[in-house]
Amino acid sequence: MIPCAWRRLPRNARRSVFTSSANLRAEDHHRQLEAYGYFLPIQTRWQDNDQYGHVNNAVYYSYFDTIINHYLLRYCGLETSLLTSPLVGFMVTNQCKYHTPISFPQIPLAALAVEKVGRSSVCYRLALFPPKPTKELPSVNHHDLIDGFFLGNPKLAQFDTLACTTGSSVHVFVNPATSKPTSLPEDFRNSLQKLTSPA
Amino acid sequence: MIPCAWRRLPRNARRSVFTSSANLRAEDHHRQLEAYGYFLPIQTRWQDNDQYGHVNNAVYYSYFDTIINHYLLRYCGLETSLLTSPLVGFMVTNQCKYHTPISFPQIPLAALAVEKVGRSSVCYRLALFPPKPTKELPSVNHHDLIDGFFLGNPKLAQFDTLACTTGSSVHVFVNPATSKPTSLPEDFRNSLQKLTSPA
Amino acid sequence: MIPCAWRRLPRNARRSVFTSSANLRAEDHHRQLEAYGYFLPIQTRWQDNDQYGHVNNAVYYSYFDTIINHYLLRYCGLETSLLTSPLVGFMVTNQCKYHTPISFPQIPLAALAVEKVGRSSVCYRLALFPPKPTKELPSVNHHDLIDGFFLGNPKLAQFDTLACTTGSSVHVFVNPATSKPTSLPEDFRNSLQKLTSPA
Amino acid sequence: MIPCAWRRLPRNARRSVFTSSANLRAEDHHRQLEAYGYFLPIQTRWQDNDQYGHVNNAVYYSYFDTIINHYLLRYCGLETSLLTSPLVGFMVTNQCKYHTPISFPQIPLAALAVEKVGRSSVCYRLALFPPKPTKELPSVNHHDLIDGFFLGNPKLAQFDTLACTTGSSVHVFVNPATSKPTSLPEDFRNSLQKLTSPA
Repeated sequence: MIPCAWRRLPRNARRSVFTSSANLRAEDHHRQLEAYGYFLPIQTRWQDNDQYGHVNNAVYYSYFDTIINHYLLRYCGLETSLLTSPLVGFMVTNQCKYHTPISFPQIPLAALAVEKVGRSSVCYRLALFPPKPTKELPSVNHHDLIDGFFLGNPKLAQFDTLACTTGSSVHVFVNPATSKPTSLPEDFRNSLQKLTSPA
Repeated sequence: MIPCAWRRLPRNARRSVFTSSANLRAEDHHRQLEAYGYFLPIQTRWQDNDQYGHVNNAVYYSYFDTIINHYLLRYCGLETSLLTSPLVGFMVTNQCKYHTPISFPQIPLAALAVEKVGRSSVCYRLALFPPKPTKELPSVNHHDLIDGFFLGNPKLAQFDTLACTTGSSVHVFVNPATSKPTSLPEDFRNSLQKLTSPA
Repeated sequence: MIPCAWRRLPRNARRSVFTSSANLRAEDHHRQLEAYGYFLPIQTRWQDNDQYGHVNNAVYYSYFDTIINHYLLRYCGLETSLLTSPLVGFMVTNQCKYHTPISFPQIPLAALAVEKVGRSSVCYRLALFPPKPTKELPSVNHHDLIDGFFLGNPKLAQFDTLACTTGSSVHVFVNPATSKPTSLPEDFRNSLQKLTSPA
Repeated sequence: MIPCAWRRLPRNARRSVFTSSANLRAEDHHRQLEAYGYFLPIQTRWQDNDQYGHVNNAVYYSYFDTIINHYLLRYCGLETSLLTSPLVGFMVTNQCKYHTPISFPQIPLAALAVEKVGRSSVCYRLALFPPKPTKELPSVNHHDLIDGFFLGNPKLAQFDTLACTTGSSVHVFVNPATSKPTSLPEDFRNSLQKLTSPA
């Protein structure tokens, strides 16, 4: 397997990614576990690895879609059926930075923070933390696949504190009948705001 | 969401799938938990659901690829790097029967049995069991995502005993340098044979 | 890249796949171009290749889903919106046999035949034909991506006459409101029956 | 299905995406066909649509991976086999902005520009243009799926001149044996530089 290459990314390649030292500092912050409020272990799949033996970049976006929708369904009362749901979320932009690769069959930890809740839009921060390379196996349980877990949970100690990937995205919520942006319900907004200042 | 439709499949549609009563009896057997030896919980993803709100048929094959490769890597010593591996497995055929649908964010249980170990080929039996529709959450732990678990484990009680999907597939193992079928090593073969008569 | 391995599949491995000589003869027939009525070129993607450098087995099912739904939308008047559609198709079973591998960036040809049209179910036959390994480029045009093409079209000469993969599947059509199997409309049925005896 | 919602994105939601008016002007430029040098039609798949009936955001990244790798293989002499290739490209960052949705079975046009070629890294600009909503079918031919086409080609007239999605990404090329960044060969660099100032 090819070990992590971009860790040794030359300075001018890094500069093409992080265009200022302020950006670099922000990215350093976004790689910390404490910058996130909600966590969900991710089970990688054989098909996630591409021809080079690493999880393909497009697949990270499906991990991040999964933790976002998981939180919205489990904690915000989102309904995803077009037949009955009063609001559905559309992605308007997203981005990722890949620091070190992961591969099937690793089980990394996805992380979610909410940067801003607007009238009908939500800005998310996302990250992926690799498992600690120890012999001791993490004892995250199935409840955590169903409920996820929150900052402060002792199970976080089983994962690296430095993200291998960071990302962000923006959802706009619309009424599926009219397809116009719709105000987020109070409860929905409150559940999201719990993730706005985790640290 | 559309509830399971093919459960009420008319008799002649069923007949187009199961061409004899012997086939129907075999399928009934293959839907039982006891017909399998190895188990791995599967985390569904938002992207797994198709436009009709159910996990898309093609995605089940990536679940089954995942449990097979997981077992081969964890218990048979398979190496998947083309650069160093003496043998890699190619799929020559596979099939699925879909009895009832599942959807993100459900967490079903994949199951694996080995029907036959040849000189260089392996025939697998596969199934997917939905979680029990109870309030009590299953307490499968993260070890089980890393190690899976075996028939007899009390955690199996947390899943339905009737499969929602069954499948089968055949791997042929070849030497990546010569691309010719290659004899399975003794250890590799032994680990597979542990799953040949689970019941 | 690893050249096709299962072409040289030993006789007893083949036997595990094709359990009788009648099955072997049927499979030989299903690999012929003349056994199909409708054709659609398939654009492979970088992500389709797995760690071994070939299109992953699960991906073939998404190719076959694509040609089936393409035909249903383009020629049978299927509507796929749950909000408005009177019938949607659910897969009840499918299978594939992989004879020789393909890889991104090849552009193979998917093929579709209809084996049987029931009251509410349809049995399909499917195949994938690789491009001919010649210097002359096939001149399939964009119309063919939108309209596909039918048996007899001179463009078929640009593809191999022997399938690299064959498959089959069964759809049951249900009413999304009641989720009960529903009779196929006359027009829908007629358009499918055009593909029942292509040869 | 739900028509484009984010077109009517409220001003402050837009602001969360485009943080300055300079960014907004840059984005307006990046949505123009003339900002790109190389083009490849993309065949959407049934599985690309998510539960809301649109191509899922993660799938756009696999379209963009496909046009990039297609250009590298076809015009820059990239070899993708780990066993023999002297250099392989790893993604270090990428991002997309989604203006209007597309859905299977539409056939949009992917577009590629090269923003900068470093010693061992390449910055790409990407976009997706929907087909023109006319009765006249575009006559892009199969050569174009194999060869793509370049700015100035009359076939571009068959697609919208305003992108529905824009994106960017950065590749770093490494030697798979040492996993260190490696200088791009002269020919490779030249072929990429042809796409640096298409307009």
